[in-house]
Amino acid sequence: MNTIQLETVLRDVRDALEQDDVQRARQLLEQLQLADRAETIGDLNLEEQTRVLPSLPAEDAADVLEYLDEDEAAQLAATLPAKVLAQLLDEMYPDDAADILLDLKPAQRAQTLALMQTTAQVQPLLAYEDETAGGRMTSDVPVLRRWMTAAQAISYLRGLHPESESQHYLYAVDRDRRLLGVVGLRDLIVAMPETTIEEIMNPHIISAPVDAEQAELAQLISRHGLSSLPVVDAAGRLVGVITHDDLLEVIEDEATSDLYALASMSADSDLDVDSPLRVMVKRRLPWLLINLGTAIFAAWVISIFEGTLQKLALLAVFQSVVAGMGGNAGTQALVIFVRGLALGQVQPRSAIRAVAREVAVGMINGVAVGVAAGIITYLWKGQPYLGVLIGIALFGNMLIAGVAGALVPLTLRALRMDPALASAVFVTTVTDAVGFALFLGLATAFLPLLL
Amino acid sequence: MNTIQLETVLRDVRDALEQDDVQRARQLLEQLQLADRAETIGDLNLEEQTRVLPSLPAEDAADVLEYLDEDEAAQLAATLPAKVLAQLLDEMYPDDAADILLDLKPAQRAQTLALMQTTAQVQPLLAYEDETAGGRMTSDVPVLRRWMTAAQAISYLRGLHPESESQHYLYAVDRDRRLLGVVGLRDLIVAMPETTIEEIMNPHIISAPVDAEQAELAQLISRHGLSSLPVVDAAGRLVGVITHDDLLEVIEDEATSDLYALASMSADSDLDVDSPLRVMVKRRLPWLLINLGTAIFAAWVISIFEGTLQKLALLAVFQSVVAGMGGNAGTQALVIFVRGLALGQVQPRSAIRAVAREVAVGMINGVAVGVAAGIITYLWKGQPYLGVLIGIALFGNMLIAGVAGALVPLTLRALRMDPALASAVFVTTVTDAVGFALFLGLATAFLPLLL
Repeated sequence: MNTIQLETVLRDVRDALEQDDVQRARQLLEQLQLADRAETIGDLNLEEQTRVLPSLPAEDAADVLEYLDEDEAAQLAATLPAKVLAQLLDEMYPDDAADILLDLKPAQRAQTLALMQTTAQVQPLLAYEDETAGGRMTSDVPVLRRWMTAAQAISYLRGLHPESESQHYLYAVDRDRRLLGVVGLRDLIVAMPETTIEEIMNPHIISAPVDAEQAELAQLISRHGLSSLPVVDAAGRLVGVITHDDLLEVIEDEATSDLYALASMSADSDLDVDSPLRVMVKRRLPWLLINLGTAIFAAWVISIFEGTLQKLALLAVFQSVVAGMGGNAGTQALVIFVRGLALGQVQPRSAIRAVAREVAVGMINGVAVGVAAGIITYLWKGQPYLGVLIGIALFGNMLIAGVAGALVPLTLRALRMDPALASAVFVTTVTDAVGFALFLGLATAFLPLLL
Repeated sequence: MNTIQLETVLRDVRDALEQDDVQRARQLLEQLQLADRAETIGDLNLEEQTRVLPSLPAEDAADVLEYLDEDEAAQLAATLPAKVLAQLLDEMYPDDAADILLDLKPAQRAQTLALMQTTAQVQPLLAYEDETAGGRMTSDVPVLRRWMTAAQAISYLRGLHPESESQHYLYAVDRDRRLLGVVGLRDLIVAMPETTIEEIMNPHIISAPVDAEQAELAQLISRHGLSSLPVVDAAGRLVGVITHDDLLEVIEDEATSDLYALASMSADSDLDVDSPLRVMVKRRLPWLLINLGTAIFAAWVISIFEGTLQKLALLAVFQSVVAGMGGNAGTQALVIFVRGLALGQVQPRSAIRAVAREVAVGMINGVAVGVAAGIITYLWKGQPYLGVLIGIALFGNMLIAGVAGALVPLTLRALRMDPALASAVFVTTVTDAVGFALFLGLATAFLPLLL
């Protein structure tokens, strides 16, 4: 359905609610595809949402709640009566239900949990933080034993609750739930009925520890192209599985986090265009104030050369070209390294070669941009020495920019920190300070030639 | 296996190859997991790779070729004898084989295709561009008919080539291959044997046109959390399926493209830390030269106020603070909007609200940063009027920055262009020019107060 049609449905739903015709609102919403339905409900105000959601079949309402933004879902869940909410959460996969429960106030959480039928599956998941393997996994995992036959495994699957999360890979475990192997549903179907799981399972399993962080998960998934990731506790016991949809989310959220961190914002991927004003300011202002600090530092570097600037104001026209171009070149290198680290492409042995390549790139691009800027400056202002000076300063700053862009994320990673975090601030501080110092320093040294 | 162990294996493989002991090299590589094996082979030079790859079982060698970077795989494939290459490509999924064939010279491509056994499956895929639905899909798709029973469908699956790509969703089509519904493997297993496909299939299918571009695919996948995406031609006929691993790649490549575009680089996601020097320069230098153009434009804006700067060189110390902070604030807004557009969160009806929110964020952050900068300036230089002037200029520039950061990507999208492309250049050009003009313009107007 296109936007204009959705717009119409939204208006009709609103009209129906205004006339207190909740049934009509429900009918209108039921016609939509899940994504459209959730979005339309997301566009209603909280009061309207609270009225319309309980009117939907519990299963559909649960789907909508899963689909909404974390913030929106939390707000809506908080306004629903505990009994209604418990019904909806029972319809959701345990991992999604746990995410919503974790956003409730403790009293409401306890009350809702007590009314739920799936408490046993959901309760253990409340112990894990949202952005770790434990927080992303579902604990509702059917497991196989290695002595089962394919036919037994299939009839075991038939006996499971039809609503349990659809998993395309099944894990074989020993009596202590330690992972032995993985079997794809397709292999199970294709196998002769009396084949044992041991014969068809693949014993090479990639698993994640339950406390693994999102960046680590994203690397595992990317590197091995996984479509299912088993999660194990410290003793190697299977405690859950991260299924396809959650793997996609890990990859997306990690990319968003890196992008935000590089733009000097809080790296929480739950910040988005729809975030409320308060959240927007809270996630962005502190970083702007840090940036202000580094900008003042760069201003202090300039102030060292105030005497030179007094003698030749023309320098003030070109100083930002040198600093800014260093910033651009540094950001290019930075982004390539941060992305390479996130996707697991940078290994220690290749890192040295990659940094050396940045030195070469910095020199080549530095010469090209330096010569171009020098010629433009000469043609514009007719001062050959000024052109030479800008060219040299640009070359030097772009070379340093490339090296800083490569080394800052590598160093952060070596210190076991997020390579994207604050690295843009570091790199532009370097390129600003070096750019101003190099250009104005050279100008001070050769001032007689310029006057 | 950790990096140090891999380092040892790499050295041993190299030693074995030096002593012409290809068998030993093969044995060493065979012990490794696929990802490690591919990476170790990727670290050999081309001559070593050409010797060791044909010694591996064709299936393993094919896996390695699939795993390597596109550039690396293309280079290696080009050096292999056509007969060896044809064998490897026969072992690969048709879509991956097509990607490699497309990177060969036409003569070698024709020669290799002629020697392959899977020519019929691969040939049609050569017509599609790499970063479209057609280029990402596999055409080796088992299809069901709606009158089949679950038991018939399962025995049909048993009869398929065991090497065909493992798909967890199967599509039911009519006699013209038009899509009717989708069935998960799990549903097939759980269904009573005599149930018909029509009874268990879900008729609500999300599909992509064969010429859909990567950004469009990424949005569909994110919005609906897909784990399989059928691809249809203009007549609605099923021509292929994008399977899980390729969906992950679409999401990753699209995130990389956006990140690169925002860092003012060529948006090709195949640029990475390991790219050769020539590629690095080619993808980065043109953008640096564009940035140089905008930096010179900003310098020209400053030059308008050269007279003012001559009278008060102190202004040169602070001009970059105003311009730079605008750039930071603009980039924050830009990244949030670009990401929101990429993930399909920004709908026309929510866009206006989101832009209005940016105005508010710009005002709040502008006041906070403006006041902070004003106070710092006053404390540092003891000039109250200079502090006020910087505060006002910062407020104005940050407000404009937020609006520009939001409007530039929205405008590009409305013009059906990539919202990330060149948008960082636009936004920083605005914030630089406005920042310098506002600060130096105000200083010129109120110069008597400052001297």
